[in-house]
Amino acid sequence: MSTARPVHAPLTQFPFEHGEPVIGGTPLSQLVAQVGRTPFYAYDQQAIAQRVAHLRTSLPTGIHLHYAMKANPLLGLVAQMAMLVDGLDVASAGELRTALAAGAHPQRISFAGPGKRDAELEEAVAAGILLNVESFREARTLAQISARQGKAARVAVRVNPDFELKSSGMKMSGGPKPFGVDAEQVPALLAEIGQMGLGFEGFHIFAGSQNLRAAAIIEAQQLSYQLALRLADSAPSAVKSLNLGGGFGIPYFPGEQRLDLPPIADALHAIADDAHVRMPDAQLVLELGRYLVGEAGVYVTRIVDRKQSRGQTFLVVDGGLHHHLAASGNFGQVIRKNYPVTIHPARPDLGATAGSAEVVSVVGPLCTPLDMLADQIESPYAGQVGDLVVVYQSGAYGASASPAAFLSHPATLEALLP
Amino acid sequence: MSTARPVHAPLTQFPFEHGEPVIGGTPLSQLVAQVGRTPFYAYDQQAIAQRVAHLRTSLPTGIHLHYAMKANPLLGLVAQMAMLVDGLDVASAGELRTALAAGAHPQRISFAGPGKRDAELEEAVAAGILLNVESFREARTLAQISARQGKAARVAVRVNPDFELKSSGMKMSGGPKPFGVDAEQVPALLAEIGQMGLGFEGFHIFAGSQNLRAAAIIEAQQLSYQLALRLADSAPSAVKSLNLGGGFGIPYFPGEQRLDLPPIADALHAIADDAHVRMPDAQLVLELGRYLVGEAGVYVTRIVDRKQSRGQTFLVVDGGLHHHLAASGNFGQVIRKNYPVTIHPARPDLGATAGSAEVVSVVGPLCTPLDMLADQIESPYAGQVGDLVVVYQSGAYGASASPAAFLSHPATLEALLP
Repeated sequence: MSTARPVHAPLTQFPFEHGEPVIGGTPLSQLVAQVGRTPFYAYDQQAIAQRVAHLRTSLPTGIHLHYAMKANPLLGLVAQMAMLVDGLDVASAGELRTALAAGAHPQRISFAGPGKRDAELEEAVAAGILLNVESFREARTLAQISARQGKAARVAVRVNPDFELKSSGMKMSGGPKPFGVDAEQVPALLAEIGQMGLGFEGFHIFAGSQNLRAAAIIEAQQLSYQLALRLADSAPSAVKSLNLGGGFGIPYFPGEQRLDLPPIADALHAIADDAHVRMPDAQLVLELGRYLVGEAGVYVTRIVDRKQSRGQTFLVVDGGLHHHLAASGNFGQVIRKNYPVTIHPARPDLGATAGSAEVVSVVGPLCTPLDMLADQIESPYAGQVGDLVVVYQSGAYGASASPAAFLSHPATLEALLP
Repeated sequence: MSTARPVHAPLTQFPFEHGEPVIGGTPLSQLVAQVGRTPFYAYDQQAIAQRVAHLRTSLPTGIHLHYAMKANPLLGLVAQMAMLVDGLDVASAGELRTALAAGAHPQRISFAGPGKRDAELEEAVAAGILLNVESFREARTLAQISARQGKAARVAVRVNPDFELKSSGMKMSGGPKPFGVDAEQVPALLAEIGQMGLGFEGFHIFAGSQNLRAAAIIEAQQLSYQLALRLADSAPSAVKSLNLGGGFGIPYFPGEQRLDLPPIADALHAIADDAHVRMPDAQLVLELGRYLVGEAGVYVTRIVDRKQSRGQTFLVVDGGLHHHLAASGNFGQVIRKNYPVTIHPARPDLGATAGSAEVVSVVGPLCTPLDMLADQIESPYAGQVGDLVVVYQSGAYGASASPAAFLSHPATLEALLP
């Protein structure tokens, strides 16, 4: 009787040919030659487009898809997203500037964030984007700015709901939270917004992120919709936009499975049908970051050293937590688990060593035990100095979410593959 | 009967006057006006100099102090260190360049790191610094580079000892490790180093970091010295340098106390006396980073919003984990604990509100629940929008160890105070 160890969800987004992943249509070893040096991130635009297309066909027609730029703010990728999806969600004035530089229409940009500075609010009102208001202070400041600029700020109310998104990687609702305004305080805020003459457009309800359980997401969306319906009674005007948040997760760790979309689509159909009657002016929006780009990206490093230490084999590579904090297990994880990682010969044309499977750990070049990319994984190929190590599921919260200056190593490259 | 909650070690490095910390001789509110905007780090050069002087008087004469630049690579601070201590330890070619730009003599620079790239080794040999060799591969590459450059690389062997530093924040020795060469493999490496004609200088034994127990540090130093004595028998020439590592911690969290130096000094005296006889050419070295600069730095932010959510008060500030990952609890900590944090009026001349003590949480502006700087702390002053929040113990592993680009907020400033 054997007990199978949990394994990673299959990497369906990249075909494997001759033992190599093919990324953006190019086999890994060729891609490395083209990029010119390691380490680098590569993002496959086709994989992103396919993910968006799959969502479009799976979800009810008419549901808008937004891209949450914080997942990956690379300009070229944002420019692609500006064309593929219906809106961009920014989390700072810096991201707003990137969105505008990427060609996004201000009408299709919204801005959420619990600590928007006055200068950011000024900039956002001037640009004419939608502001998700997160506090009474923000609403009052926006009223002053609107008066000064002679134009009413476009606002939605970000609601801290009275429920939580169960089984979520990061809970962002229920109980005391710094995000948005508690549901029970929203009617008072809506009254102020009406009195101050701000341009009310709707609600933003974001219950959590990185969730792999369809049932939990469905429940949160249904509760969000019901909450919005109740709050709409207090709104100064009809709800034109209802952002139901995101929360769609991707599988990172052994044992995790891809999200089951059809039941979510069915539940959204029911919400859309009901909203058609009870909230007829409202555009329903899903805000997704990681789910759109996370699986389309890889982080590629090269082996600098191969070491034996007391029965274990270490591959030391030229990249690590300074480029990919999340893969090292130091970005919100309580217990470190391995991302999917594979090891490949630099010159596959020379033929891989047969029968060289081994258990190895992959560590970065930093002088800290935190810098680990893979802890005792089974590799069918025994990597040598000069060979390549690929970390998958790296398209979101990678380069931009890592301490690039730590230990003063070279910056990572980022390649957007056509 | 009452049970006292654990509290932070007293902040002895900064006097408090009129309720404000005085940093670098300047009261907080004046310092904020001088720097011109928040958020910023400020490092007090006097506090650093005092810490070094205290170590000099506490430890045996003749023990060299090195600064591990990874703790804080700010150029001006490194320049100060180059004058104050006996050597700089770098962890990359980037840090080497900073050390040279800071005026450090190459004779006094050493380089450790488990994945040194060939180009880094080339650069280090050319500069004439000491290389802590971490693998057979590195030694062989250095022999080739030495031949090509016509000068023998200066090398010490970094040893992965057969013991661990107990109670350490980060264990870096004992068992299988990517750092250095296992003690039992070192004689073979020393033989190769001799045969290849590299310039052997000694050993580097680094057992761990962030340790607050003197007994554990003493034990590790004694074991390191004994190990070096044994390994010296296999060395191609006399040991000129013995780096006993560091590991001196600073108190970050409630209940932690400052390291008790006198017993460490006593034990080092014994080691130094013995080494005087048995390893007479060896310079003993302690390599410290965090301990030299960690307590001399603060991170200062301004309150952007003040929010009530279901019975809790949140202060949202203009800085957060993108500048100070460690204070958010996301840099190697398993359980999040609070750094020492204080809240102050922006205009103390107007008089603080009496009787306004409260329990508050301080969060950053990022749209993630990870961005928390203080979780439900007791503050004697109820901070308002525009007021200041100070995070202490922030001189090491702060700005350079944080994901600055995350969410595209403005970079932090760094001020080195005379």
